[in-house]
Amino acid sequence: MKVLVINAGSSSLKYQLIDMATEEAIAKGLCERIGMDGKITHKTSTGVELSYEVAFPTHKEAFEELTKVLTSGEGKVIESLDEVSAIGHRAVHGGEKFSSSVIIDEEMMQTMDDLADLAPLHNPPGLTGMKACKEVFGEDVPMVGVFDTAFHQTMPAKAYIYPIPYEYYEKYRIRRYGFHGTSHRFVSNRLAEITGKKDMKVITCHLGNGSSIAAIDCGKVIDTTMGLSPLEGLIMGTRSGNIDPTIVSFLADKEGMTAAEVVNMLNKKSGYQGVSGFTSDQRDLEKAAAEGNERAALAVEIQKYQIKKFVGGYAAAMGGVDAIVFTGGIGENDASVRADVCAGMEWMGLKFNAEANNVRGKETLLSTEDSKVQVWLIPTNEELMIARDTRDIVEGK
Amino acid sequence: MKVLVINAGSSSLKYQLIDMATEEAIAKGLCERIGMDGKITHKTSTGVELSYEVAFPTHKEAFEELTKVLTSGEGKVIESLDEVSAIGHRAVHGGEKFSSSVIIDEEMMQTMDDLADLAPLHNPPGLTGMKACKEVFGEDVPMVGVFDTAFHQTMPAKAYIYPIPYEYYEKYRIRRYGFHGTSHRFVSNRLAEITGKKDMKVITCHLGNGSSIAAIDCGKVIDTTMGLSPLEGLIMGTRSGNIDPTIVSFLADKEGMTAAEVVNMLNKKSGYQGVSGFTSDQRDLEKAAAEGNERAALAVEIQKYQIKKFVGGYAAAMGGVDAIVFTGGIGENDASVRADVCAGMEWMGLKFNAEANNVRGKETLLSTEDSKVQVWLIPTNEELMIARDTRDIVEGK
Repeated sequence: MKVLVINAGSSSLKYQLIDMATEEAIAKGLCERIGMDGKITHKTSTGVELSYEVAFPTHKEAFEELTKVLTSGEGKVIESLDEVSAIGHRAVHGGEKFSSSVIIDEEMMQTMDDLADLAPLHNPPGLTGMKACKEVFGEDVPMVGVFDTAFHQTMPAKAYIYPIPYEYYEKYRIRRYGFHGTSHRFVSNRLAEITGKKDMKVITCHLGNGSSIAAIDCGKVIDTTMGLSPLEGLIMGTRSGNIDPTIVSFLADKEGMTAAEVVNMLNKKSGYQGVSGFTSDQRDLEKAAAEGNERAALAVEIQKYQIKKFVGGYAAAMGGVDAIVFTGGIGENDASVRADVCAGMEWMGLKFNAEANNVRGKETLLSTEDSKVQVWLIPTNEELMIARDTRDIVEGK
Repeated sequence: MKVLVINAGSSSLKYQLIDMATEEAIAKGLCERIGMDGKITHKTSTGVELSYEVAFPTHKEAFEELTKVLTSGEGKVIESLDEVSAIGHRAVHGGEKFSSSVIIDEEMMQTMDDLADLAPLHNPPGLTGMKACKEVFGEDVPMVGVFDTAFHQTMPAKAYIYPIPYEYYEKYRIRRYGFHGTSHRFVSNRLAEITGKKDMKVITCHLGNGSSIAAIDCGKVIDTTMGLSPLEGLIMGTRSGNIDPTIVSFLADKEGMTAAEVVNMLNKKSGYQGVSGFTSDQRDLEKAAAEGNERAALAVEIQKYQIKKFVGGYAAAMGGVDAIVFTGGIGENDASVRADVCAGMEWMGLKFNAEANNVRGKETLLSTEDSKVQVWLIPTNEELMIARDTRDIVEGK
């Protein structure tokens, strides 16, 4: 069985064709600059790499191109589209309506549309992608939507209700939703596989350009750092994470900005970019810090410090912690972040294995054998999680 | 030596006259409705209580009345004002300029005025109080300003720099300042006295109508929950504490509010009031919760949960914790908050003594003798802290 996994943005379309027998991607690619001009990049597991310009007036033409490239020419990996048994779509915001993955039908798309207010940047392009995909592949190929928010729906009210007038929750569904759920679920499931234990207290740190941490007790999320939007929580590449809300009105007043303009600045010009003044990229920061740039060093220090505090906070929330998992681009590849977050954590029974930590992107136990708290590097694979959900739902599991 | 302690608000003036020999207040009182009509309430340590209406067009008349009531009539506790050796003023926001208490002179008042932008609700009335006090008591009585922010000035940059464009720190001094410093200092000093140890890792929880938590390592604050303003951090009576900043722009858009209006709502209609929908008072909440009111129960649950998470986070920040201190109206009087925050914390070596916890407002060890983490109830006394600072500075210590 082969599953096509789609991640549609407003002007882009990422895809992977995954063979469920091996759980490997036999092809992956990116259609970009949709609505502008258009370009496709396509790679096969056999090593073929293609990249060429092609007109993508809408998402439909991008889907048409990827069907072509999958079935013909140098990049061909399947004989015909009949081999695509099902399609899984990354769907960002499922609000309170979707606590698991679902078949994409008219009702589901209507609900996603109703939720657009909560995720104005993500749900509309996601929907556009689903509709264009149905046009190109037809109604007979089953499609499944996998939400970033779904895994977090197990949080208790004390974690998801904001201390603002309750009517805003009733009226607009303003609450903590959390994101990166597919990643937190993938790595926590993988940890359960590795250890053979499902009843662990786990803290999963997804650290990348966007970063979030989740507290997962016996497989259920009980808290997470992102909230109504992906702005809340940790410092990120260009996002501020938590700040004093007074800053919004203070800057609105001083700089003559609207609330929306300030929040836009908090999303796009803050985080590492804001503190360092020159980059949102962790590697650039660490290079500059090593060369003596103090603000670059400060940005990295803030990140490590915040992660450490959330780890302590979530341990308290769960009454202890059995394992900490690092994943995402930074979590998988940046040994210094893992080392510094875990430094000085002996008080909670964590013994870090500095030697084992000298690793990139490979599943590894980073704590010593006698550490009470295990520390793991587990590479995430959101596409595979989407493909598995899609298969399971299509097969009625 | 007798020290008069003053806490001036925009329409009120609290005072205590403290005899430094006994460190007891020999009189305390409140002038209220300044600028409207006026009323004074005055109590002496000998049990006299007075309360009457009197015209307070400005703070000056309030000071004049308190000099009268201290030196004449039923409420008299001193023969003449000459017995007032010094006056200590609560000063809220010292910005980065004041990291300890200081003599109030022209330069100091000018600096406070320059900082008014950072504390528009607190610094201007504080200044008004200082000026009126000088008019009434004359320039010869030394006056000292004790800042809520000063104790927190030891925080490292990783704790006080917000992940927003750095220029806003340079231009407007937007950073974490922290408040309730006088209280956090009083109880952490008292803990050092009790235990005879100055090198402890301490988490002080000041829980009242306003609430904040501080992480104090070897007597120095390394982090605290309040930030640029007293809005950040924990859920409070009417304040939201931390929220996703996106909520500000979301509500501005949906409800047609300005950023200032949303932040005003976060200060005045949120917290317990917002979640419960009917009260900002913890006692009312707990009574209603006991009678089955779910939203009242939720508000209390959120509070306890957030405190617990900050305790875990600050333990991680310090590489462990030796003692947790509860203080403030709620911290001193609400046994269930203390019990629930400390429940399930055995993972960090905390053994709670439920029996000892059955206490109100009295200095008590709340952990068992063999608990690795001590838990204390220590009543705060900000006025005494102000009086001690005032004495020490006046005596040149």
